[in-house]
Amino acid sequence: VNQPPAVRQDAIRRHNLALVLRQIHVDGALTRAELTQRSGLSRSTIGTLVAELSDRDLLSESVPTGGSGVGRPSHVVGPRPDSPYVVAVDIDVTRVVIAAVGIGGLVQSRHVSAAPTGPVTPEGVAGQIADALPSLQAAIDDDARPVGLGVSVPGVVERFTGRVPFAPNLGWHDVPLQQLIQAAVPHLPVSVGNDADLAVLSEHVWGSARGFEDVVYLLGRIGVGAGILTDGRPLRGAGGLAGEVGHTVLDPAGPPCHCGSRGCVETFVGDAALLRLTHGEGSVQDILRAADQGEPAAMAAVEVLAEALGRTAANIVNLLNPQLIVFGGSLRTVLTRAQAHVEAALDGPALSGAREMVELRPCLLGEDGPLLGAAQLAFGPLLTDPLGALDALSHEMAGP
Amino acid sequence: VNQPPAVRQDAIRRHNLALVLRQIHVDGALTRAELTQRSGLSRSTIGTLVAELSDRDLLSESVPTGGSGVGRPSHVVGPRPDSPYVVAVDIDVTRVVIAAVGIGGLVQSRHVSAAPTGPVTPEGVAGQIADALPSLQAAIDDDARPVGLGVSVPGVVERFTGRVPFAPNLGWHDVPLQQLIQAAVPHLPVSVGNDADLAVLSEHVWGSARGFEDVVYLLGRIGVGAGILTDGRPLRGAGGLAGEVGHTVLDPAGPPCHCGSRGCVETFVGDAALLRLTHGEGSVQDILRAADQGEPAAMAAVEVLAEALGRTAANIVNLLNPQLIVFGGSLRTVLTRAQAHVEAALDGPALSGAREMVELRPCLLGEDGPLLGAAQLAFGPLLTDPLGALDALSHEMAGP
Repeated sequence: VNQPPAVRQDAIRRHNLALVLRQIHVDGALTRAELTQRSGLSRSTIGTLVAELSDRDLLSESVPTGGSGVGRPSHVVGPRPDSPYVVAVDIDVTRVVIAAVGIGGLVQSRHVSAAPTGPVTPEGVAGQIADALPSLQAAIDDDARPVGLGVSVPGVVERFTGRVPFAPNLGWHDVPLQQLIQAAVPHLPVSVGNDADLAVLSEHVWGSARGFEDVVYLLGRIGVGAGILTDGRPLRGAGGLAGEVGHTVLDPAGPPCHCGSRGCVETFVGDAALLRLTHGEGSVQDILRAADQGEPAAMAAVEVLAEALGRTAANIVNLLNPQLIVFGGSLRTVLTRAQAHVEAALDGPALSGAREMVELRPCLLGEDGPLLGAAQLAFGPLLTDPLGALDALSHEMAGP
Repeated sequence: VNQPPAVRQDAIRRHNLALVLRQIHVDGALTRAELTQRSGLSRSTIGTLVAELSDRDLLSESVPTGGSGVGRPSHVVGPRPDSPYVVAVDIDVTRVVIAAVGIGGLVQSRHVSAAPTGPVTPEGVAGQIADALPSLQAAIDDDARPVGLGVSVPGVVERFTGRVPFAPNLGWHDVPLQQLIQAAVPHLPVSVGNDADLAVLSEHVWGSARGFEDVVYLLGRIGVGAGILTDGRPLRGAGGLAGEVGHTVLDPAGPPCHCGSRGCVETFVGDAALLRLTHGEGSVQDILRAADQGEPAAMAAVEVLAEALGRTAANIVNLLNPQLIVFGGSLRTVLTRAQAHVEAALDGPALSGAREMVELRPCLLGEDGPLLGAAQLAFGPLLTDPLGALDALSHEMAGP
């Protein structure tokens, strides 16, 4: 507040650099005129900021060729192939995806490892990540450098430590995941998030939830979790453990749940429910594919899930009054194939005011939602203070 | 950002005036030394700010007499009787409370109107408020002036309009409450909030939730509502309709609810449940009083409620991961008389990480929680910019 003018000007410049970079990250390539209009900054300020971001290899400018427009064409500002990228990791029960993701959310290269014969272990994942980095780098521009690593995990993640106290479907208990991966990749800042928490972030930036500020993302993988935004901010809870909608109780007389309780949401809309309803014929993927093709037995099972999903959504609508519920993972198919069943089950118990206000949408980013959310997490420092983040990183890599 | 220094200094001064006033409002009378320490400002700055707030009748300074301390006694800064006050209104089904509340949350005078023979109507409440203002003013310092009016209502309140689409226990539908009251009290800015949303605010400032940032306040009156803070901010939802925990479903096979659904939380832990369990012998107040005295039949009923309340809390813990759940209204007695039952029912379905993190507490402000929250709502502008709010108000009262 009592800073001298030069310090203040530098803070403003850094703030504006971040503003321009975020705009490109969120909207993709834009003309200078569009950037000027969306940022509210002057044309000459935009020119200076874009030049500085280009100097640091964060953006490129080009003059479009061709076209029949009249007047001077506006320069197009966009990401460039040698820009810094992040490594995004999506850990799931059946496979681990490790990807290089550029500014703008483009997946530049991708390494998918099917789970080994045994279960996915934290140490195994840390090793896979370290092993995958050179091949990711080899597939993209030589001059591009990673600036961070974000990890999505289908389990509970402690807010400040990146510990995973509980990831039931991986069989993990009390795993210091961030620490393990950080040790395997010492040159990159590592951050860890829950898969649904990350999926809502990426859908908010690039997907179905763009422009919505009060959003619940329901992600069905084996378990069912929720990523929640209220007023545009992530709702994480006191310890980062919020969103375990899969273990709220839908019916106390329901099936026993692996968590020790009974009738949890997960027992009605998770993979186990789908397999139970189809008498174990085929994998979850097979059943969802059959439902997508309208196969009657699969459709019947999906409709039963849809009814429970609508009742789950009703509890969320009454408690949180979201504008939008996004359905991802297996729940995407449940919504797209049986939306009428979901809506009908929602209509009864939801209070009318909140009911009229909520929209149901399938996720747009599909299976990549958690992966792109992990990328968004890793991009955090660069998008908050581009030059500061680059300087901190080069300092880190030089010393000690 | 490009303001000239004088403008900037004025903004800093206004910010600091608000800081000092809020400190007194929240903590009560403090010595100058304590104010200096808590605000981080210099002793001389505090002196100037306190002098300015005293000039505007917002605070008083006094030198304590007596005592045997050595050294120069520090001036004590506190609210004064002729400071601006707010009018707080708590509408409930059986009575309407209208009070003058001073800086620091002190109820200076209070007018309680038992509900008339018929039901509480919006127009009736607006008239009662207008009628009560002179007698409130007569009971306090002649020079004290009201600066705002806040209203608590046991129903759904739209976020920006102060409309009440639905207040089932009052029998209200789609009532433009803020507009009606504003018309009856044209000289005061009127704001309206839901009772549980307001109760969590006042408990956060002066009660059980001081120092907690992730809080759910469960308020049992006739219905059951929740006021939610996440990261210290109110969670209101897209339209201000969040917190209707009373209409989340605890058991789909449960009793029919007046909302049209079945097995809502309200049917298990609300007043109707208590009356059902005691076969309608005595009023809710009688039963709660008997339970407070350990009377067996009343205790048995309270313990049944406690079990359902624990299961309700479990769903909240898994979805929101709060640090603290506060129990108010009738639920205060349920917690204090049968906490072991609440905790036992919570233990089963709550996930262990989130379970270990949550504390259960009775409300501290009792029946006045919503009233004091309404006061807090009305004090908002004064606590954000004291001089700006006073100037706006004197302008308002002078013209047009």
